[in-house]
Amino acid sequence: MNYIFFRHIWKSVLAVTLLIIVIAGCSQEESGAEKLTDTTAPLHALQPDYPVQYEPASEEEITEVIDRIYVYLNTTTPMVLQDAESENDITNIADHKGDTEFEAGDFRLVSYEWGVTYAGMQLVGEVTGDERYINYSTERLNFISDVVEVHREKLNENPELDTPVESIIHPGALDDAGAMSAAMIKAMQANYNEDLDWMVNNLVDYIYNEQYRFEDGTLARNRPQNNTLWLDDLFMSVPALAQMGDYTGETKYFDDALKQVIQFSERMFVEEKGIYMHGWVQAMEEKPVFHWGRANGWALMAMVELLSVLPEDYPGYDDVLAQLQAHIKGLSKYQSGEGRWHQLLDKTDSYLETSASAIYTYSIARAINRGWVDEKSYGPMVLLAWNAVSKQVNDIGQVEGTCVGTGMAFDPAFYYHRPLNVYAAHGYGPVLLAGAEILKLIRNHEVAINDSGLQVYGPK
Amino acid sequence: MNYIFFRHIWKSVLAVTLLIIVIAGCSQEESGAEKLTDTTAPLHALQPDYPVQYEPASEEEITEVIDRIYVYLNTTTPMVLQDAESENDITNIADHKGDTEFEAGDFRLVSYEWGVTYAGMQLVGEVTGDERYINYSTERLNFISDVVEVHREKLNENPELDTPVESIIHPGALDDAGAMSAAMIKAMQANYNEDLDWMVNNLVDYIYNEQYRFEDGTLARNRPQNNTLWLDDLFMSVPALAQMGDYTGETKYFDDALKQVIQFSERMFVEEKGIYMHGWVQAMEEKPVFHWGRANGWALMAMVELLSVLPEDYPGYDDVLAQLQAHIKGLSKYQSGEGRWHQLLDKTDSYLETSASAIYTYSIARAINRGWVDEKSYGPMVLLAWNAVSKQVNDIGQVEGTCVGTGMAFDPAFYYHRPLNVYAAHGYGPVLLAGAEILKLIRNHEVAINDSGLQVYGPK
Amino acid sequence: MNYIFFRHIWKSVLAVTLLIIVIAGCSQEESGAEKLTDTTAPLHALQPDYPVQYEPASEEEITEVIDRIYVYLNTTTPMVLQDAESENDITNIADHKGDTEFEAGDFRLVSYEWGVTYAGMQLVGEVTGDERYINYSTERLNFISDVVEVHREKLNENPELDTPVESIIHPGALDDAGAMSAAMIKAMQANYNEDLDWMVNNLVDYIYNEQYRFEDGTLARNRPQNNTLWLDDLFMSVPALAQMGDYTGETKYFDDALKQVIQFSERMFVEEKGIYMHGWVQAMEEKPVFHWGRANGWALMAMVELLSVLPEDYPGYDDVLAQLQAHIKGLSKYQSGEGRWHQLLDKTDSYLETSASAIYTYSIARAINRGWVDEKSYGPMVLLAWNAVSKQVNDIGQVEGTCVGTGMAFDPAFYYHRPLNVYAAHGYGPVLLAGAEILKLIRNHEVAINDSGLQVYGPK
Repeated sequence: MNYIFFRHIWKSVLAVTLLIIVIAGCSQEESGAEKLTDTTAPLHALQPDYPVQYEPASEEEITEVIDRIYVYLNTTTPMVLQDAESENDITNIADHKGDTEFEAGDFRLVSYEWGVTYAGMQLVGEVTGDERYINYSTERLNFISDVVEVHREKLNENPELDTPVESIIHPGALDDAGAMSAAMIKAMQANYNEDLDWMVNNLVDYIYNEQYRFEDGTLARNRPQNNTLWLDDLFMSVPALAQMGDYTGETKYFDDALKQVIQFSERMFVEEKGIYMHGWVQAMEEKPVFHWGRANGWALMAMVELLSVLPEDYPGYDDVLAQLQAHIKGLSKYQSGEGRWHQLLDKTDSYLETSASAIYTYSIARAINRGWVDEKSYGPMVLLAWNAVSKQVNDIGQVEGTCVGTGMAFDPAFYYHRPLNVYAAHGYGPVLLAGAEILKLIRNHEVAINDSGLQVYGPK
Repeated sequence: MNYIFFRHIWKSVLAVTLLIIVIAGCSQEESGAEKLTDTTAPLHALQPDYPVQYEPASEEEITEVIDRIYVYLNTTTPMVLQDAESENDITNIADHKGDTEFEAGDFRLVSYEWGVTYAGMQLVGEVTGDERYINYSTERLNFISDVVEVHREKLNENPELDTPVESIIHPGALDDAGAMSAAMIKAMQANYNEDLDWMVNNLVDYIYNEQYRFEDGTLARNRPQNNTLWLDDLFMSVPALAQMGDYTGETKYFDDALKQVIQFSERMFVEEKGIYMHGWVQAMEEKPVFHWGRANGWALMAMVELLSVLPEDYPGYDDVLAQLQAHIKGLSKYQSGEGRWHQLLDKTDSYLETSASAIYTYSIARAINRGWVDEKSYGPMVLLAWNAVSKQVNDIGQVEGTCVGTGMAFDPAFYYHRPLNVYAAHGYGPVLLAGAEILKLIRNHEVAINDSGLQVYGPK
Repeated sequence: MNYIFFRHIWKSVLAVTLLIIVIAGCSQEESGAEKLTDTTAPLHALQPDYPVQYEPASEEEITEVIDRIYVYLNTTTPMVLQDAESENDITNIADHKGDTEFEAGDFRLVSYEWGVTYAGMQLVGEVTGDERYINYSTERLNFISDVVEVHREKLNENPELDTPVESIIHPGALDDAGAMSAAMIKAMQANYNEDLDWMVNNLVDYIYNEQYRFEDGTLARNRPQNNTLWLDDLFMSVPALAQMGDYTGETKYFDDALKQVIQFSERMFVEEKGIYMHGWVQAMEEKPVFHWGRANGWALMAMVELLSVLPEDYPGYDDVLAQLQAHIKGLSKYQSGEGRWHQLLDKTDSYLETSASAIYTYSIARAINRGWVDEKSYGPMVLLAWNAVSKQVNDIGQVEGTCVGTGMAFDPAFYYHRPLNVYAAHGYGPVLLAGAEILKLIRNHEVAINDSGLQVYGPK
């Protein structure tokens, strides 16, 4: 049962219900209250029928939404190692023999999506001062570290052993490496966790030394076609490289991060639209262009994460800043009237997608908070975006409207019809990150409704 | 209950009804009439199921629509001054003491919207030869003048006095000044009214000397942000300045009008789309772009009004003409399949809006009638636009589908969800103006259906 | 009863039905099966709910669809000459006196649309090896030739005589000449038919010597306005000229074909969109732009037909190839999520149209098969297009969703609301041609689903 079907049903149910309401309403209206005209009412001040809240969310509203997600995730992502066969909990990791797995919650503890969630929990904790969020991340990263510490020995002895942390010990793709290691470095830099260095070094080494690259150093893959650039890979590499540069002081990591942003952008940024294409295949004479929302989010967030730690006077800083500004300007043209963006950004008949919208919300809000873009220009649209994104968090704290994991294709049907699923893990970290930066934004800026229109003025 | 909800209900009701019709229709079809095929029928000549009339409206159809509006407005906009407290009618204005107001009809007699209505009634009267229209305007402007004559003395004595003509005596915004004074000068030039000079001088003085401007003379406001250009302000100033130049022979008014058109256009015309943005805030590093329909209408009509009185050999005439042509070309790309334009011109999922569409209809039809643009190119689309706009005039003469008064915002939700209201006064004058110019167009041009497609040929 | 109405009804019926299914489904879901989450399922591999088949069609599926069309057309397009008055069949054509007509089937045997159908039947026959298809064309062209042979004498004697082949004997428009003669030359070149020379010479002479042209030789019409270019005319001339060049070895035909492609493209190709406008009127100061789907198809197919016979080293070959590549690139941006294209290519709220989509499918598939464009870039979208187009072939072999014959207009309503009709002959030939080239494409290329996304790799 897909999204479109649900909409049809909903419309029909709505229509019949409304018909009854309208009939009731009309007879009431005829019965007498004064009509609102040009002389009796300020029509320009009539309350519009917005599909999502128009007024900027309050601190309380934002923290309530974030908390709902926390409660859901804390309940549904247990930290338990189990025997793969018996599913019995393992109390002593070192002594256990045989294949293992994590107790199945709703989400995997080791994945690039959950790397974003750990970083999101950390940031929410910092902005709200609520330690539960930081603990969520700290405890799980320590737990993963404990398992890795033991299992990397065991895997040496028996390479066939099944372990839920194999992608950390033997990363085989940027998806395994970038988001998890970036969250780990952030955690160590903030002293939430200690001693994640083996994992960090192992994962960043994969990015820096092992991943397939073009001759000019651009990170590439050989799927679905040989020598393919995936826009997603900017996020799967750049934040980790940037964090590693900041953590170690070694400029080679900054240089590699900068190189990726510039070299991907030269090939994949579509100037006249101000947004990126999803995939770029070297051998294609003509590159078909599909402006997939989430991949644009990964690119945007990669630049935001890089600028968050790169010194302002570092050579190339201004190029990344200019590219970020151009991208935000482009994205601003495609926001829907509801507040989220479309699955294919420039196709208004494709569905509204939550995870991409949440990533943009985080990234644009941070860009405002750090002075990279103008709060007056982009404040109202990002506050609207938060209202639309946060409305997708359901009563039990699940993020709805998120596109599942997505390969690459060169036809529109593929992107138009990707399934939406509350268990698509990509939405959770971005909503947490977005909430944190929106909290900062409303704390630090004058926000007001002026003649029905939302305005953001200078910093308080 | 908003516009979208009504559409859903309507669709459902329609669907059920049609289902019955179709079932009936199908069984009939099976029963036997000759089928229409490639060999039995000229399929290319099948009558399409147009949502509005495709054939150009006849003179009778146009005047019937205009008359319906006239009857409605003449009934619902009384000219009566009342005591503000007792609501008793005042027969001797000079002798009355205390606060006053106009008897509440459906529309205010003094507003920029009604300035357009007065000008519209005058033009319809001229084109149809029906004096009722001219009288509508003449009588109300004389009535307003009489009240102003007395109340400006009374306000001198008691600045706290409430009077319905305060915005004429003490204008505080371009909205107070431009449209009303332009209609007044037109009325005096045509000898419909005499002696409106005090009001005209007072209002144009506000525009020329009092309104806030940038250092380069561009008319600006300090809301919703400091140093904001409102595209609407082209109409709230340029027609009045142009009329004043024509009325007084003083070129400084023409020069100021020209300056506004050029300096707004340099900043706010988006070349690659051929349409204007609504607002421009000087301090914004990046200007978010929202192509609001009605503001584009104000800009277009301002140019049309200027060219209507500016001598052809006046320096700058050609620049305004070129800008008008570029704007019409841009607008032509965004007309909907129904015939009106969308609330946000480049967003096909925003609603169809009547007042903007009516302003374009008037402006493009006049541009054709005066030879500023090609009748072959733009005649068919403007005739379609009239059919779509005039269909929005309901049985009792109200103009439906008009967006209420609208501030400025920098998020899409604001524009997408502005309420529609039959008491939004902005639709009336433009529909009258449009009807008048469309009458001239069909009188003076060969119009024909050629192989199902509407064509406009050269002047008759 | 039009297309849009049917959709509304269908939606309502669907909604009610689905409501029942969903209620049933939900109670089932609550009852217990394991939920699919991030830990229990590869969510990225969930089967999307595509509106048309996503997997590439198999040879069997393609030939089944084509066969369905063949059976329908073979049944409904008899080859019988009748007396126009009595409708009695005529056995001896030469002896018959008086007006004649063909027995009315569902489609005319002599039309530009059926010229495409004859060429389509021939190509399907060649690609499938199934002689029934070739016979369909051969028999009808011989039958037509037989009638022409007799009737051109009779028409000499009595110019008032009604005959169903008058447009071949006395062609009066490019529509009469190009498509029929191109199919005839192909048939003779492949030795399916002999002795069609009189018809071919007569028709190509019309194109080369008789049709109205601009001074620079561009083929033009004087309707609906004087000196009008119809994009459609590229197809109504270029393939015939190209075939004639190939058949006779006379380069003047190639030169004329090249000239048309270049001179139409200079005037009518809209670079920033990568697609053509439908009509171009010399006298219009500004050219309104309507990107009608089928006319873009005629232009595209004209280039494909020219490149199919033009020697690679012929001067101008590269210009046509570059123009073809630019057009395909432009079209690729506008394909819908369903797989077909919209009636107005750049208007997503206009309906999906089958004949244009079928022409693109044929043309792009052939461009891939002949190495003119990259199979990796455009293979997936053209396979999707075939799936969407072939789904429009109904159970009895009729092609649904085709716009009827269309004149030219300069307003959007005209194009948005053209009727759709299964007896619009324009869809049949293109679907046959498309099926043939798609068959070749899947025979000769590696096609695979990679991580849910369709990929086309190099030639097998």
